[in-house]
Amino acid sequence: MPNHSINAPAGFLAAGDHIGIKKQKKDLTLILSEKPAAAAGCFTQNIVKAAPVQYDLSIIHSGKKVRGIVVNSGNANACTGEQGLKDVKAAAGTFAALAGCESDDVLVCSTGVIGVNLPMDTLLPGIGQVFAQLGKDEVSGGNAAQGIMTTDMFAKTAYEEVSVGGITVKLAGMAKGSAMIHPNMATLLAFITTDAAISVELLQKALAASVRDSYNMISVDRDTSTNDTALILANGMSGNTAINAEGDDFNKFSAALHRINKKLAIDMARDGEGATKLMEVNVYGAASDSDARIIARSVTSSNLFKAALFGSDANWGRILCAMGYSGGKFDPNHVSVNFRSSAGSIDVLKNGSPVLFDEARAKTILSEKEICVDIRLTDGGFSAAAWGCDLTYDYVKINGDYRS
Amino acid sequence: MPNHSINAPAGFLAAGDHIGIKKQKKDLTLILSEKPAAAAGCFTQNIVKAAPVQYDLSIIHSGKKVRGIVVNSGNANACTGEQGLKDVKAAAGTFAALAGCESDDVLVCSTGVIGVNLPMDTLLPGIGQVFAQLGKDEVSGGNAAQGIMTTDMFAKTAYEEVSVGGITVKLAGMAKGSAMIHPNMATLLAFITTDAAISVELLQKALAASVRDSYNMISVDRDTSTNDTALILANGMSGNTAINAEGDDFNKFSAALHRINKKLAIDMARDGEGATKLMEVNVYGAASDSDARIIARSVTSSNLFKAALFGSDANWGRILCAMGYSGGKFDPNHVSVNFRSSAGSIDVLKNGSPVLFDEARAKTILSEKEICVDIRLTDGGFSAAAWGCDLTYDYVKINGDYRS
Repeated sequence: MPNHSINAPAGFLAAGDHIGIKKQKKDLTLILSEKPAAAAGCFTQNIVKAAPVQYDLSIIHSGKKVRGIVVNSGNANACTGEQGLKDVKAAAGTFAALAGCESDDVLVCSTGVIGVNLPMDTLLPGIGQVFAQLGKDEVSGGNAAQGIMTTDMFAKTAYEEVSVGGITVKLAGMAKGSAMIHPNMATLLAFITTDAAISVELLQKALAASVRDSYNMISVDRDTSTNDTALILANGMSGNTAINAEGDDFNKFSAALHRINKKLAIDMARDGEGATKLMEVNVYGAASDSDARIIARSVTSSNLFKAALFGSDANWGRILCAMGYSGGKFDPNHVSVNFRSSAGSIDVLKNGSPVLFDEARAKTILSEKEICVDIRLTDGGFSAAAWGCDLTYDYVKINGDYRS
Repeated sequence: MPNHSINAPAGFLAAGDHIGIKKQKKDLTLILSEKPAAAAGCFTQNIVKAAPVQYDLSIIHSGKKVRGIVVNSGNANACTGEQGLKDVKAAAGTFAALAGCESDDVLVCSTGVIGVNLPMDTLLPGIGQVFAQLGKDEVSGGNAAQGIMTTDMFAKTAYEEVSVGGITVKLAGMAKGSAMIHPNMATLLAFITTDAAISVELLQKALAASVRDSYNMISVDRDTSTNDTALILANGMSGNTAINAEGDDFNKFSAALHRINKKLAIDMARDGEGATKLMEVNVYGAASDSDARIIARSVTSSNLFKAALFGSDANWGRILCAMGYSGGKFDPNHVSVNFRSSAGSIDVLKNGSPVLFDEARAKTILSEKEICVDIRLTDGGFSAAAWGCDLTYDYVKINGDYRS
């Protein structure tokens, strides 16, 4: 089977290893493009922005091309003051010296504990250690996906190929995140590489549109991180005629990019801290796009409904409650709600009237690993999908003592 | 010791008993005023409003005087359609017939499961059963406080006396609520009786102002209920010269009312489902009243910080994160954060710089039952306080299977 990791697109190398920021697990990942790549990014809307987010923002906004990304886990480099920014620049500079490029050709991301300065005595030599392992094989790519994980239970990757003007273009993605997940403009950390040739402007446009309907529609705990970042590098090495205008090629590329982001986003919700179930909430018939999105996200974010889902309890009243305080507008007297899974489908509310449903059957349906909640409104023609997970004992356990 | 229950003010009677809506616990409470009382109320902002909320809203907005309140627990009478409204009117009518007044002299409140019609065959005779027990003694008052409870671990009551124009005026309050608590204009259920004479307009003004800084500043789970209601009845039987204008008497009355609401609100946060700790968050130096309130509430609502509090983990990064996504404006580079309890006080962030604090000492401070988080900003002169609780295994347990 061919390599489908982050280093699969032409001209991309990757590696990940344990350098000592965390006790045992891999904690540093490098991505390098052989040629300068167009770069686009979406970042957290939290006004407390980690140092690497502030740094990357200025590079992405400049529109300049980029050679690589340094990502450490175990320390978020957030709320770390002036020293935090100096440390980002030192990390970028170290990678740049090894790669033979300029400091501002390198993006930097961090994830982990907030409020502790990066251990630079460990990080800088660690960059050298991982740089020496950069490769194009599946093992290097797999290590890269592991190096960005924190409390994630599994590595999240996605891969697509799409034909652009007769040339096969590859896209590969990887992401991490299982708590502090309620992204606003981006998710925790997601990286996409592609060997497509595409202008920076269109790359940013495709990424922003996709992020809106993928990472921005998942929630684990309603906490929007200080470090949320989604980055894409496009180095053009597939040889396709550059995508410089909207049209078929742009649409095909955008659709492939969105399939990647959607898979990664859903995997993040599935891997929500302590989660045992993935929830998909579909809202149909909303008065506006915004109403549909707000209502869907509110249901995926309700602690009460999340706990009911954990208990496989068909407590649809909590869904109506969460819809009602969401801020989205709808007619509460004509709502229909249905639960669906691989075990079947059951109506619980039809056109505003409670259905006398079979509780045992509802429990069987809700006991599956993937649950769909379909909400039908009678207010208009807009729809939205959002994803989340259940609230469990393990979420509390994991977060009751994260730092030790 | 004199009776300090809801029936302590002159002319108020109360009772509570088990009538069969719930399996064993008390589930019906009645409050009766011997004379018509001025009535004021604050209600949920959830657009899905339970039938009793819709009914009470129209009576309170009419400004008419009221004789009593029927409150059942075990069933919220929410999302119950036309039948729900008919059931409210039947309950009010039954109480009115017994009390010798009109149906619209009676307010109705419900709390419990959403989406199930009230068992009227149980409720209507139950109103007769409890009406026969109405009394002025402490036992009747205590039963009334128990009849409104759902998952509450303890009954929440408060009592104040204040001199108005040389006359002693009594105020008594009781409240219930331990989940679906993130009130917006009111809380789950709170009832205040007073024998003060005061105009309806000033009563509403005093209640709304107090609700804003008491019930509206607590959060257990960010879920705003469909049934939130705070009601006050003032029957004038203390004999004070009626408070018909703002001034000293109004201010004294308002202050006493606010002490009652604040105590009840804090008790609700303390009794949050599964909670082991009460958290008070004080924000100082904010640019506006709204910024101070939004920031304080966001910290009390963060699942991640709530879980850290459960684990006595001084994870202040989660506080900064919650402040940053709150929507409140502040300069993140000059924030100070301090933890405080009966075991001492410790700085963790000073003017934007992390403090190297003693982790063991922080753990000791955070292991107490009441924790204060003091947040100092440098953006202006506004402050706010908000209350919440920790997120525990028991919250998940209680809510994983609430309906069975």
